[in-house]
Amino acid sequence: VPDEHSPASEKRQRGRPPTRAKPRGHPGLPLELVGGLAPVQRNILMAAHDLLLERGYRALTLEGVALEAGETVGTVKKYFVSKAGLVEMLVDSLAHDTWLKVVATVESLPPGPERIHAYITAMRDVFVETEETLALFNVFPYAMRLPDLRPRLAALYRWYRELVLEKSGILALVPSGIVLTDEEAEALAGVIMAALDGLSLQAALDPEGFDVDAAIDMLDRMVRSAVAV
Amino acid sequence: VPDEHSPASEKRQRGRPPTRAKPRGHPGLPLELVGGLAPVQRNILMAAHDLLLERGYRALTLEGVALEAGETVGTVKKYFVSKAGLVEMLVDSLAHDTWLKVVATVESLPPGPERIHAYITAMRDVFVETEETLALFNVFPYAMRLPDLRPRLAALYRWYRELVLEKSGILALVPSGIVLTDEEAEALAGVIMAALDGLSLQAALDPEGFDVDAAIDMLDRMVRSAVAV
Repeated sequence: VPDEHSPASEKRQRGRPPTRAKPRGHPGLPLELVGGLAPVQRNILMAAHDLLLERGYRALTLEGVALEAGETVGTVKKYFVSKAGLVEMLVDSLAHDTWLKVVATVESLPPGPERIHAYITAMRDVFVETEETLALFNVFPYAMRLPDLRPRLAALYRWYRELVLEKSGILALVPSGIVLTDEEAEALAGVIMAALDGLSLQAALDPEGFDVDAAIDMLDRMVRSAVAV
Repeated sequence: VPDEHSPASEKRQRGRPPTRAKPRGHPGLPLELVGGLAPVQRNILMAAHDLLLERGYRALTLEGVALEAGETVGTVKKYFVSKAGLVEMLVDSLAHDTWLKVVATVESLPPGPERIHAYITAMRDVFVETEETLALFNVFPYAMRLPDLRPRLAALYRWYRELVLEKSGILALVPSGIVLTDEEAEALAGVIMAALDGLSLQAALDPEGFDVDAAIDMLDRMVRSAVAV
């Protein structure tokens, strides 16, 4: 079916090159640094998180966050400089806490189906039904519109995809060349992140009517079958 | 592994019952009615869509939409009553146009792997990289916070999941009982919708760096393997 393949490969040129680049690491603050934040910084970020969730992105002003945190505007400015700085650090710190929990759960397992199962199951708890992800949904519309914020979120999602591959153990299965090519592994990481985001949305919109556990089970099964020889 | 199964079945009680209910049909306006909207209504909805995309949910006032559409506020009120009425009709009409295009592409194919492939590929064009989906992302944060809007979006997503099963031909594969149970089919529909939403997000955040075609190929492959005997 040559007709099917030629437009697809033409389209692919617009996307990433077929060979996977070296892991880029965290686009902003290294994870260790987020973990080492001063209590006053953590307090301000928690206040920003609550404000974002309860009243949305527009309510996230330096003044509003200072009031919510019980700090002065001067203190908030000292640590985060601007609203943009605050938003960047906030999305970094949301990711940080989530991924640390996943690492603790799955990193000791050898790469393979069991580790993938443990990873997807852990992601359900730390990512799919959490306030952190709902907070992120408040940032997305602005990230799509604001030229300064969008590349920052794009970089965060590239890093998320790297982490998915590494923590799930899928990356360790790739070099054999039997299971997945580099390009397929990247695509799989995109689908996993996408499904987790989208399930988070459906669970938040319909907590009584949507069976998120059954959907996570199905995703787990689909990912394991995608890496099966 | 009885330890694994007992908490899972406990959790599942919070979700949907294991047997799938009858298709509920569209939660609001029937598709035929959206298609039969008067030109003035379509004009107002297009203005609302543009406003939502360019300036966000808060800019979506009856006055703002009237100005954008070149209509009087009285006309907008006459057809849509309130902001809530306008938002509901808007999300219905976004879905309407999208699904009609998918129906035209795949409905003539017999249920099976080829139809699933055609369906997922069509969804890439009409759903993943479209302004309609980006417009919806502007509504989500408010749907999560506003008690009147949330159930409406929840109902819309239930209907989306029904449509996924029906239009992809997966629903027609279920009665045999060999391929998927009703519950698994529901879960699969949730994962497909979730992945499409999430891929839409990653493509919008990172149009140069994210290879959405490769991700759609991978999703297609994963869905086909999930229904394979």
